[in-house]
Amino acid sequence: MSEILVIGSVALDTVATPAGRFNDVLGGSATYFSISASFFSRVNLVATVGKDFPDEYKALINAFGVDLRGLETKAGKTFRWEGSYVDDLNCAKTINTQLNVFADFKPKIPAEYKDSKYIFLANIDPDLQLFILKNFRGQQLVGCDSMNYWIQNKNASLKKLMKEVSFVFLNDAEARLFSGESNIIKAGMFLLSLGPRFAIIKRGEYGAILFTKQGISLLTPAFLLETVCDPTGAGDTFAGGFMGMLARAGKVNDQAVRQALLYGSVMASFTVEDFSVNRFLKLKKRDIESRYKKFKDLTIP
Amino acid sequence: MSEILVIGSVALDTVATPAGRFNDVLGGSATYFSISASFFSRVNLVATVGKDFPDEYKALINAFGVDLRGLETKAGKTFRWEGSYVDDLNCAKTINTQLNVFADFKPKIPAEYKDSKYIFLANIDPDLQLFILKNFRGQQLVGCDSMNYWIQNKNASLKKLMKEVSFVFLNDAEARLFSGESNIIKAGMFLLSLGPRFAIIKRGEYGAILFTKQGISLLTPAFLLETVCDPTGAGDTFAGGFMGMLARAGKVNDQAVRQALLYGSVMASFTVEDFSVNRFLKLKKRDIESRYKKFKDLTIP
Repeated sequence: MSEILVIGSVALDTVATPAGRFNDVLGGSATYFSISASFFSRVNLVATVGKDFPDEYKALINAFGVDLRGLETKAGKTFRWEGSYVDDLNCAKTINTQLNVFADFKPKIPAEYKDSKYIFLANIDPDLQLFILKNFRGQQLVGCDSMNYWIQNKNASLKKLMKEVSFVFLNDAEARLFSGESNIIKAGMFLLSLGPRFAIIKRGEYGAILFTKQGISLLTPAFLLETVCDPTGAGDTFAGGFMGMLARAGKVNDQAVRQALLYGSVMASFTVEDFSVNRFLKLKKRDIESRYKKFKDLTIP
Repeated sequence: MSEILVIGSVALDTVATPAGRFNDVLGGSATYFSISASFFSRVNLVATVGKDFPDEYKALINAFGVDLRGLETKAGKTFRWEGSYVDDLNCAKTINTQLNVFADFKPKIPAEYKDSKYIFLANIDPDLQLFILKNFRGQQLVGCDSMNYWIQNKNASLKKLMKEVSFVFLNDAEARLFSGESNIIKAGMFLLSLGPRFAIIKRGEYGAILFTKQGISLLTPAFLLETVCDPTGAGDTFAGGFMGMLARAGKVNDQAVRQALLYGSVMASFTVEDFSVNRFLKLKKRDIESRYKKFKDLTIP
């Protein structure tokens, strides 16, 4: 089984949604990504937490088989994010961000991780994302995420990063901002013009679009749910299912990537059903296959 | 070939979009619906216009084979709508509405139309929609559209209408308002609880959802375009393609309805490519089949 390396955040989240409020629950891009990908592949995680990070949360991530030798514990407090979906389940309102030890995150890649075949650079400073890639000889398949802040404040670095990645994951607003194009097809093709082989534009509850140099390769709705509890981490969970499925497939052709997109959607549909990563605690591989089949049935006329 | 009867508006629209501005062009729900459906079925139209309605526009609709014996010309001016998509291509801002002869529209159904097998009640006062159905013996398959105004101001009549129709077409905001449910699955199931056999929730550039009593039957994205010129009439064009395809299929089972939904999406994707109904002037049946095939390729993993 191939290995995936993810570099990102492990955080303590305080989240309010119409379904309730939870304080200091396990969160972070690398957390959601790694747990999601763990259902398909071995996963190595690089992140940093503070001394206050509960051992039980480490044990929780580790119980999914995620390798935590790259999780550094530093003096200080863990990255904390507080957000609310009370007004709009589709869009988090950030109430408070405390970077804490994450503020001077300098990812150290353990020697054992340098053979990972797939790398996911979660949303961090693109200069750090570029710095990470210097550890590798360019044989890996790299995916990356980013956000409006870096598009606006580190535009040149982000464009440089685009030359180094095979997959870029952005949501529609980010893709529009980065490209300066309001039309989503033009935005997707702009991303590819910067270097990646595949661009994945995430549209939240409306699904996702996969672009290749030939144009749109797959246009898929999201798996709809009667109850959405907590959308936090849906994008990273999506990327985790996508990269995990690709690693499991062991090849990167259009068909494998299209299928990976559906698995990403399926994994995202699970995580929003409960707070934090709780839904994964009781998720079985057969639940994934069953929802994948249902999803295909609903989307094929 | 089965016949479809549509009752709605024939209008003169003034539309501003990022692509330009057009004054007093042909518009109206019955216009878009009938031209779209004409590619699949014979269509009978009931509407009213004023003395100022250009003969060339009548000839234009008639050139698609649409029967205009139900188009009444009355003293006064034609219904005029002025809208702008300059700020948001997904949402029309109404600048001005002049109902004119449409204000006291009392649909008269020509005797020749009473054998129509399919009826589409475009968005008008639900009391009028109910009144129209009194002309028929209940053997027809009826579809209807509505809007926020009637949901708020004629709620009881609209609910009564729901008992008489097989298909209800609403957009997501309308379905949420009518049901009082923010969740779209719950909104769809609410619509079906009122009587229709199928509910179709339109999501604009994000596609459409088909509901049956068993839940979601088909979840489809919209066919994306690099250039959207004028979204006016997309919903009625969608319904026209849908009902037209059903009439052509001559049966109403889940499979036929799922396929009709895709044809509705395809027809809507054409109309937004040009102002007014201009795109249809050069549309060939083979263009429809070609886009239908492309749409299926893009949505099937």
